Amino acid sequence: METKCITLTTDFGLSDGYVASMKGVILSISPSTRIVDISHDVNPQQVLQAAIVLATAAGYFPRGTIHVGVVDPGVGTDRALLAVRTGGQLFLAPDNGLLGFIFEKYPRPEVRRIENKSLFLPRVSHTFHGRDILSPVAAHLAEGVPFEEVGPKTKHFGREIFPHPVIKVDSIIGQIVYRDRFGNLMTNISETDLQAFDPAEIEVSAGYTQIKGLSYAYSDVEKGELLCLIGSTGYLEIAMREGSAMDKLRFPLGTKVEVAGKTG
Amino acid sequence: METKCITLTTDFGLSDGYVASMKGVILSISPSTRIVDISHDVNPQQVLQAAIVLATAAGYFPRGTIHVGVVDPGVGTDRALLAVRTGGQLFLAPDNGLLGFIFEKYPRPEVRRIENKSLFLPRVSHTFHGRDILSPVAAHLAEGVPFEEVGPKTKHFGREIFPHPVIKVDSIIGQIVYRDRFGNLMTNISETDLQAFDPAEIEVSAGYTQIKGLSYAYSDVEKGELLCLIGSTGYLEIAMREGSAMDKLRFPLGTKVEVAGKTG
Amino acid sequence: METKCITLTTDFGLSDGYVASMKGVILSISPSTRIVDISHDVNPQQVLQAAIVLATAAGYFPRGTIHVGVVDPGVGTDRALLAVRTGGQLFLAPDNGLLGFIFEKYPRPEVRRIENKSLFLPRVSHTFHGRDILSPVAAHLAEGVPFEEVGPKTKHFGREIFPHPVIKVDSIIGQIVYRDRFGNLMTNISETDLQAFDPAEIEVSAGYTQIKGLSYAYSDVEKGELLCLIGSTGYLEIAMREGSAMDKLRFPLGTKVEVAGKTG
Repeated sequence: METKCITLTTDFGLSDGYVASMKGVILSISPSTRIVDISHDVNPQQVLQAAIVLATAAGYFPRGTIHVGVVDPGVGTDRALLAVRTGGQLFLAPDNGLLGFIFEKYPRPEVRRIENKSLFLPRVSHTFHGRDILSPVAAHLAEGVPFEEVGPKTKHFGREIFPHPVIKVDSIIGQIVYRDRFGNLMTNISETDLQAFDPAEIEVSAGYTQIKGLSYAYSDVEKGELLCLIGSTGYLEIAMREGSAMDKLRFPLGTKVEVAGKTG
Repeated sequence: METKCITLTTDFGLSDGYVASMKGVILSISPSTRIVDISHDVNPQQVLQAAIVLATAAGYFPRGTIHVGVVDPGVGTDRALLAVRTGGQLFLAPDNGLLGFIFEKYPRPEVRRIENKSLFLPRVSHTFHGRDILSPVAAHLAEGVPFEEVGPKTKHFGREIFPHPVIKVDSIIGQIVYRDRFGNLMTNISETDLQAFDPAEIEVSAGYTQIKGLSYAYSDVEKGELLCLIGSTGYLEIAMREGSAMDKLRFPLGTKVEVAGKTG
Repeated sequence: METKCITLTTDFGLSDGYVASMKGVILSISPSTRIVDISHDVNPQQVLQAAIVLATAAGYFPRGTIHVGVVDPGVGTDRALLAVRTGGQLFLAPDNGLLGFIFEKYPRPEVRRIENKSLFLPRVSHTFHGRDILSPVAAHLAEGVPFEEVGPKTKHFGREIFPHPVIKVDSIIGQIVYRDRFGNLMTNISETDLQAFDPAEIEVSAGYTQIKGLSYAYSDVEKGELLCLIGSTGYLEIAMREGSAMDKLRFPLGTKVEVAGKTG
């Protein structure tokens, strides 16, 4: 049997031993499964941030990978836990938008509610379902338990993602939805959204800042200059060569970004 | 032979390459051993914090796991390095309290002093025994070296943990011993300590704050409200629903916590 | 076939999913390869810091390990990507000094330019060659692709490292090149540079601070006292017992350090 891979995306940080508890649970059930951290530095309870980070990385993993997401402000309420099969991979997470981008990127997901208690830890706490439910379920799936056994199919689940941009004939109005470690400001405007426009002629406006033309690489501008480009995640980003656009512009998340363009 | 698992708990952080050096040493001796980080974000030289983090996670790992703890302000002195077999797992750490909780949780440990130099790196530095002694010893144990070979049995070792709470007929007096990433304030009062009391009737006092009743889940109170519950580690915690009790209360470690209750 | 090991050293941090994308790419090509993080907390675009961290840890890894370094302010320019075989290991990184210490430590490296596009991801972005080029090339090498196939040999590559110290008959003038999590101040003066001097008689001066004698361990001085010793990386360090020399002295990187000594 091939080695299975389980990824983890949480807001637990790496200081407290919570992530390690999840790994211990997984390895106790499935000793040869490989565990890869996507991120544990999601800001506490910021579901949208986790959704973006998970979607950024998930597509690069092998078919059959099981992705576990735990940003779970509703733990202990009756919010559902979802198991989703799509794009050749599995995703386990609370029903709170954490999988929004996955639903956006992959059509026709098979969605089930995780309800089969025989796959949980014997004692389930009220505060840590990542350890007590999602980790053992993921490990059992890695060990070959059929996907259908996690629980019943459902059509009732949230598909929230960040708002789509407004696309007009000669402009697109979007917003800043993510800021990375380098200070790149990622928008919700995708490469596809921009396809109708001549890249050299677009003009991106946000706050008092205007940037002309879409660059291909940071090196298209001088050090310290701002530029726009399609980032490695496939979305329009405002960046600075060898510097931080975030530090310079100080745009908060949600800042409006307008792209004016001419169809080619 | 089954895959062995070695966990690491240190105060080394992840910036400097020290943890990676330990992993390189382990893999050079035991190439197929799985290495799992418990935490490297223990505050420098905070042994008690490491002891709590390690004890939180250790019990979730498979039988046979080898746990290595390195918070070692005494490196270069004649403090002993201990190897402990208990609860079906092994623990390697300096004799400074790092294993205090393990001694508390598991009775009748077999404790040895790590003294067999043939299991060390050929050249042992005066400043980094985690890399030069504990990592290679752990790797040799993972490769099947008998536990007895690490060194002689000893009965002289520290069993310090955080102070036990004072338990009276109608109250328990403990303290705050740990604060996690979410701002939950963990006390030294265990679920067992509280068993004699009616959960609905307890009253928890700390500073000027009083909280009535033991909740089962964060969702038992409104957003932003304080609550008390048994945390996922089995100890009484003061928490805030979708917020940080630490940011609100600003209680330092060591703050006195009194539980008044009525036996059921 | 033995399990291969790939290490990663980057300035990507662990928040954003970039490192996980690299790991997904590697595992998609080479499912059984072990991946070890050296550090992802290199300050953005600080190539020298990455070079020191990588060189600190690399030597502890098994023969055949493939080390990938990605601190790449020149991504998208025509800077080369290098593949280096030396010391029984492979190193992949941009040609920007990241491998400077490796060239220093290991003589006669075989250096090639990474140019074989059949080993890259099918679509290479202009902003993330760590994911699109270095990760798949490393994974193919782990799978047994011969080293020669990555691209042509070259003799034109940078060998920059931190400046060597100036060594005189009775003194050495160096500088502070690295500060670790514990506040130890690492210099560019190696154990070998100091060999001619009597350790007990050396006098280290930096700013207004003077330290007499080379200690063997932190415990040679009282708590809170400064000392000099050969750190675990083999270079002279200024440290404080159970404290932070960096917090006390506030020396910036580049601070001049003079060792006065007497040949023994």
